[in-house]
Amino acid sequence: MSEANAPASSQPSSGQPALKPRSRHTLRIALFGFGTVGSSVARILVESQPKGLKLTHIFNRGVARKRVDWVPDSVVWTEDADAVLASGEVDVVVETVGGLDPAGAWVCRALDAGKSVVTANKKLIAFQGVELERLATDKGGHLKYGAAVAGGIPVIPGLEQGLAGDRIERIEGILNGTCNFILSKMEEGADYATVLAEAQKLGYAEADPTEDVGGFDARAKLAILMRLALRVQVDPEEIVPKAITSISSVDFSYARDLSCTIRQVARAQQSNGQVAAAVGPMLVAVRSPLAWSRDTENMVILSGHYGGDVVFSGHGAGGHPTAVAVVSDLLALAHGSRRVEVPSAPARVGAEFEVPHYIRFLVDDRPGIVAEITGALARERINIRAIVQKPGYPQHALPFVVTVEPCKTSALHQALASIGKMDCLLEEPLDLQMLE
Amino acid sequence: MSEANAPASSQPSSGQPALKPRSRHTLRIALFGFGTVGSSVARILVESQPKGLKLTHIFNRGVARKRVDWVPDSVVWTEDADAVLASGEVDVVVETVGGLDPAGAWVCRALDAGKSVVTANKKLIAFQGVELERLATDKGGHLKYGAAVAGGIPVIPGLEQGLAGDRIERIEGILNGTCNFILSKMEEGADYATVLAEAQKLGYAEADPTEDVGGFDARAKLAILMRLALRVQVDPEEIVPKAITSISSVDFSYARDLSCTIRQVARAQQSNGQVAAAVGPMLVAVRSPLAWSRDTENMVILSGHYGGDVVFSGHGAGGHPTAVAVVSDLLALAHGSRRVEVPSAPARVGAEFEVPHYIRFLVDDRPGIVAEITGALARERINIRAIVQKPGYPQHALPFVVTVEPCKTSALHQALASIGKMDCLLEEPLDLQMLE
Repeated sequence: MSEANAPASSQPSSGQPALKPRSRHTLRIALFGFGTVGSSVARILVESQPKGLKLTHIFNRGVARKRVDWVPDSVVWTEDADAVLASGEVDVVVETVGGLDPAGAWVCRALDAGKSVVTANKKLIAFQGVELERLATDKGGHLKYGAAVAGGIPVIPGLEQGLAGDRIERIEGILNGTCNFILSKMEEGADYATVLAEAQKLGYAEADPTEDVGGFDARAKLAILMRLALRVQVDPEEIVPKAITSISSVDFSYARDLSCTIRQVARAQQSNGQVAAAVGPMLVAVRSPLAWSRDTENMVILSGHYGGDVVFSGHGAGGHPTAVAVVSDLLALAHGSRRVEVPSAPARVGAEFEVPHYIRFLVDDRPGIVAEITGALARERINIRAIVQKPGYPQHALPFVVTVEPCKTSALHQALASIGKMDCLLEEPLDLQMLE
Repeated sequence: MSEANAPASSQPSSGQPALKPRSRHTLRIALFGFGTVGSSVARILVESQPKGLKLTHIFNRGVARKRVDWVPDSVVWTEDADAVLASGEVDVVVETVGGLDPAGAWVCRALDAGKSVVTANKKLIAFQGVELERLATDKGGHLKYGAAVAGGIPVIPGLEQGLAGDRIERIEGILNGTCNFILSKMEEGADYATVLAEAQKLGYAEADPTEDVGGFDARAKLAILMRLALRVQVDPEEIVPKAITSISSVDFSYARDLSCTIRQVARAQQSNGQVAAAVGPMLVAVRSPLAWSRDTENMVILSGHYGGDVVFSGHGAGGHPTAVAVVSDLLALAHGSRRVEVPSAPARVGAEFEVPHYIRFLVDDRPGIVAEITGALARERINIRAIVQKPGYPQHALPFVVTVEPCKTSALHQALASIGKMDCLLEEPLDLQMLE
């Protein structure tokens, strides 16, 4: 980190003076992207006028249609990313464009020029965060991404500052507001297609919702938290997410009978150097904090070796909450606040959770089904906890549920592969982790 | 703040080189107090060996009886506070003694000598925080107190870092673990005296529990949060706390009928420059986050103008959680992390909350009581929401409850003063804010 303090003159390649992080001059801010988050960042900067921060440039494609009258005339609206990145009059680039390309290249070039970058881009940080932080350090700038996970909830500052003295052993999070909106509405009785359409109408879900409902967004955020909390650098693609699309109202009905509800949970743990991680719909006890989270809220539970469980909850997405995190990062830069460096090491996601599971079957009923299923589970040494069959469903499309004692996912999948060959199954069995 | 960066030589009065906060040498730590929190701090430092931190001195009165074998031999155990404070071989004093005297004098002397101080002392920070921070700045040291509010929950780092970009308008907190333990046990049916005795046996309550149950501890923490979140410096004594001792099982029974429970809540808000603050038992909806908090847990809800509500919850007290906050502060110092300066201004607690109230009467029943009470409320223009009287109580000691629509506490107290003259009252009416 000593290079971070090097004078600008030691970086001849940048062609401009690097930001001296400690000087108390006003930071000149170029905002990349004027969508929901970007315009909220501008709104807060203009309304609150935080000391030490000055918005100087707004870059967006087709910028003319973006222009608003509440931004001061002194701000330059531009479509020329290159010019902004090369400008000696910009200290910090705020990147709210999202995605790996071209945002990643812009962030790289800004850092390479010795500028600092504040970004809300979880994908970029999940996949390239380690390299980008190294680049920032080498070039004398800073990279901050408090907005990348759980938007307005200060989980990242909490980890870097208040929990740095602990050893975090476990993370459980509701990290995707779209999925939480969908599942908490389904809990109240809505069906998936209707509530997805509502989420799209409200702007909570994209036209193609795969990134959210497929678990890819939550996976990226989990990978970032794993680095900061568990101190392991993992390839996000080693975590195979399960989509929430397989959940139907019958599952909420059965979950309720088990005093549970269903949430998209991202979880990871480290014990004895073994790292386990999973993202997908899971059963959570109605009395547990994860079930409190409703609508588009996010929640993160960090379990520390010394401090026990800490719960953070609030608005994880949306323009204003995310913008609060961006502006807070900008203020931290302006005040010369340096993050506590959290050393992390590359690791593989190699371990499995050993938890109880909920398995829901949909069958064309005939005698002997339960015997075959329980037999297949027994062969993998999986103990059955309960078999639940609610009345009121037709015999030719009968849903019923088997819950099993804690077992490894791999053993369960082995059993389900064998069960999957049964001719009575109308669809693949749905297996969900049950969090206790 | 520019003095914070002044070279040590500019402080001839200190007689020793001041801590240079940015140099990456190892911080030499003197621990004042080896009680529950102090020994946990030592435990984490010894077990985790965080980079950049080295425990060098342990000060305690009668230190011989404190000595433990798991602390390295290199650590000096001493009863001589003066020698430690004068030592040129100590960079940071960790103060876990508590109280204003003599801890305050030690903290002053450490800061005056250019050392940094990390403290868990809410009383000291609530009453003298502003002056002590100024002293730290003047002398080139730093004062950190992340452990002073809500122990292991990173509320203070969250405020100083992740929420600095917002404008916090409201605080609601469960800030005293002892009261939360007592009230959540009473919710389950225990009576006050029994559960207080249990809390004392478990070490959660002092022999004289006034500081906790009287609301003085929560008040000090609220005053600190008000400075950081609402950015107002208030005299804690302007907030008159209400003790939880007046709550009895009948109140939990009535609260349950109102879909509420009772918690000790510390709350403050600022609107139009008017500051309101209160500490005491209050009715909270069973579905609200405040009701989730059980046992000795703490919870803080911060409502931001831009980001909405953020909830923090976890273990607010206890040796290990509090020690995590202390060690995190030490790491922040070692990494040269500077807090985002939150400008605050002196203010008076002049405004009142306008909220619904729960009023419980205990009367020797006779005709006309309700007419007199409702008449007195009407004269203060207070609207009645409901009158609830549960069966099963004797007529000569009959508890019943009146709930009223939002009104100012002062108007209610006016009405209650007049009601208080009624001969049928067996004790003073109990009025509690109802949080919605």
